[in-house]
Amino acid sequence: MTEAIRIIGIDPGLRRTGWGIVESLGNSLRFVASGTVRSDEKRDLASRLHQLFEGLEEVIHTYRPFEAAVENTFVNKDATATLKLGQARGIAMVVPVRAGLRVAEYAPNAVKKSVIGVGHGDKKQIQMMVKVLMPRAEFDTDDAADAIAIAICHAHHRASPAWRIAAE
Amino acid sequence: MTEAIRIIGIDPGLRRTGWGIVESLGNSLRFVASGTVRSDEKRDLASRLHQLFEGLEEVIHTYRPFEAAVENTFVNKDATATLKLGQARGIAMVVPVRAGLRVAEYAPNAVKKSVIGVGHGDKKQIQMMVKVLMPRAEFDTDDAADAIAIAICHAHHRASPAWRIAAE
Repeated sequence: MTEAIRIIGIDPGLRRTGWGIVESLGNSLRFVASGTVRSDEKRDLASRLHQLFEGLEEVIHTYRPFEAAVENTFVNKDATATLKLGQARGIAMVVPVRAGLRVAEYAPNAVKKSVIGVGHGDKKQIQMMVKVLMPRAEFDTDDAADAIAIAICHAHHRASPAWRIAAE
Repeated sequence: MTEAIRIIGIDPGLRRTGWGIVESLGNSLRFVASGTVRSDEKRDLASRLHQLFEGLEEVIHTYRPFEAAVENTFVNKDATATLKLGQARGIAMVVPVRAGLRVAEYAPNAVKKSVIGVGHGDKKQIQMMVKVLMPRAEFDTDDAADAIAIAICHAHHRASPAWRIAAE
């Protein structure tokens, strides 16, 4: 008997970090939960990062995923935006490791290919296909939907050596 | 009687994160310790961030600083380098907060001004002035020396509202 593997996908961002949890059992996928961890823009940066840290820690503590996947976002905005994303991403990577999870990274086009079949497409297409693949999936933000897509991508690739595809 | 305030300065980087601990008592400064937390380039990104996390956690646990200061590095390199720095910086910001410390941020020119008197200058000048200000200061890397300079900058500014000068 194969055991279901519970996966958390994380779409990091300083204002909003989306998360989505799916279970993979053989070729089938089951939606478990999703949500968005927010940081308070009125607070200083260190406190905001701490809010993301604690929010993700609570999600992992509650749902006990076995593996994690984070999007390796391509950035071509200004340096300030990239630095902000990097800071949030550092938190998104380290919280699962601290909880004993392995963390895979996927490029955005790999995530899109897994969900919509091609390496490009907009947020609406991703959300539509997430609903096709898992009719019970629910998400409160674009970030949560993207996080589910990242978890689906990992469910498809986890057996292959793509594990460390985007590793340093 | 004034109490000595122990400060940790952190110069974040994915390969090497420098740290320096000084004590501020009135107008005088005392060197306590400094060092460099390294991450293993052969490991994946999440593990490397975790190495920085644990290294900084150990330093804070050992030296019990009361306040933290991190350089708000200006970046004009490529997006990949900026993202890497951001990830390391996220860790450098969140570890002190988790230990109950407030975290101040300073721009590089503020750090230089505190140490060498003007807002520009190279690493050698910073190191020389750190030695002038605190003859007992020792550092194993440029990053550790920069971290001491950041701690000195905070010792000079902590009473002023510069606390959240670079806050989000």
